[in-house]
Amino acid sequence: MNIEQRLAEAISITEAAARVALGHFRRDPDVETKADQSPVTIADRETEQAIRAGLERAFPGEAIFGEEYGRTGDAAEMWIIDPIDGTRSFIAGLPLFGMLLGHLADDGPQLGVIRMPALGEVYAGGRGLGATCNGAPIRASSCKTLAEARLFLNEGDKLAAREPAAFARMIRAGSLRRMGADCYPHALVARGLVDAVIDFDLQPYDYLPVSAVVEAAGGLMTDWQGRPLSMESDGRTLTAATPELLAELVALVN
Amino acid sequence: MNIEQRLAEAISITEAAARVALGHFRRDPDVETKADQSPVTIADRETEQAIRAGLERAFPGEAIFGEEYGRTGDAAEMWIIDPIDGTRSFIAGLPLFGMLLGHLADDGPQLGVIRMPALGEVYAGGRGLGATCNGAPIRASSCKTLAEARLFLNEGDKLAAREPAAFARMIRAGSLRRMGADCYPHALVARGLVDAVIDFDLQPYDYLPVSAVVEAAGGLMTDWQGRPLSMESDGRTLTAATPELLAELVALVN
Repeated sequence: MNIEQRLAEAISITEAAARVALGHFRRDPDVETKADQSPVTIADRETEQAIRAGLERAFPGEAIFGEEYGRTGDAAEMWIIDPIDGTRSFIAGLPLFGMLLGHLADDGPQLGVIRMPALGEVYAGGRGLGATCNGAPIRASSCKTLAEARLFLNEGDKLAAREPAAFARMIRAGSLRRMGADCYPHALVARGLVDAVIDFDLQPYDYLPVSAVVEAAGGLMTDWQGRPLSMESDGRTLTAATPELLAELVALVN
Repeated sequence: MNIEQRLAEAISITEAAARVALGHFRRDPDVETKADQSPVTIADRETEQAIRAGLERAFPGEAIFGEEYGRTGDAAEMWIIDPIDGTRSFIAGLPLFGMLLGHLADDGPQLGVIRMPALGEVYAGGRGLGATCNGAPIRASSCKTLAEARLFLNEGDKLAAREPAAFARMIRAGSLRRMGADCYPHALVARGLVDAVIDFDLQPYDYLPVSAVVEAAGGLMTDWQGRPLSMESDGRTLTAATPELLAELVALVN
């Protein structure tokens, strides 16, 4: 199966799984607490099960790494899943939770899907394929300066508590600034509606699928030092429409 | 016309105006800059014109106060309009911008409408009428403690810059915390999905329509001292599901 066919399968698998997630949305989910205190719902687990079942049907025997059920299989290439990116948004009834699915090769993410179940939008991209939103081509903006950038700061409460000096600079940057959360602002960079996102405290299943979409749309997504993302990155990311803008973001956060 | 009929007219007027706003959404709006640097689009002005035209047909001669065109008419009772609440979200393609319409009597807001054009949701409420979302009854939660509260912090970048001591406490409060913006988290309090919102730097056309919906749903919305909102309030607001939770919010921000 070539990468285009793999991406089409990945889009289809998330479509079925989105119905599972939406079945629990705004229905008093059974909130639990994980060791790290982040809330997790039954929806999270059932949704990952649905994605895994789809992957096992379409790609039998391939390795999978997911937020809820960890790693199954053993290979350099694997699928990575975040069934509900933004469980706190999900629990608060905010329709900005996402669903992330990516495929990782030796040298980084090959393809990614960002699905927004409650918004009815799916962003997808792969190497050499470009990026799409609901099937229509999308492209990152041409914004080259931070002064002109529509900037999203994700996880602002954590940034303020743990990176106060950098946060104090961030809240004065950009031409237009929004506090955001989770995957959606990154998808809007791929779509050319937002120019930059500073994110924090992410896991590989968050940033790797997202970065595949952003890069397929012509944007960039790196760690805070401007280095490529991998399974070993520290979870602090920069997303930018252009290399020039990325360089300004690296200077801003360091 | 009684208050129930007035509210039904207000809902209908915003429905027509929402189509005007959506016609400009994600279509490269012509961004301008006002004296206070907040971006304003042609969409803002055309949408307020549509709401004003609807009000003038349904309620000829009644006073109107709107974000874009100021005050017309001269009376203690008046309609208040924010055609696009969240122009920065609108410009960044985020579907969380709202449309606000309220009616103000001598002693405060009588009725309010929060419409979310891109989400297809309309929240409405009035004194003695209760509150609804898309016509179905809604009610604020019974959450009584900040420790259990799903808390939204709006305008986090401005709060961090201008109220650093209070912000440092806020980013550690609540059982679940999201950085938000604009009217939507308040609507989610009315719907019982969110328990508390701390907001900042609002105008009367922002907070008065919103407070009518929140209070019709059984919640509370006050200034940071816990006092009722009026045209003269300073734009810092607290929204809470219960009086007990409001008291904890007042202590938190002061």
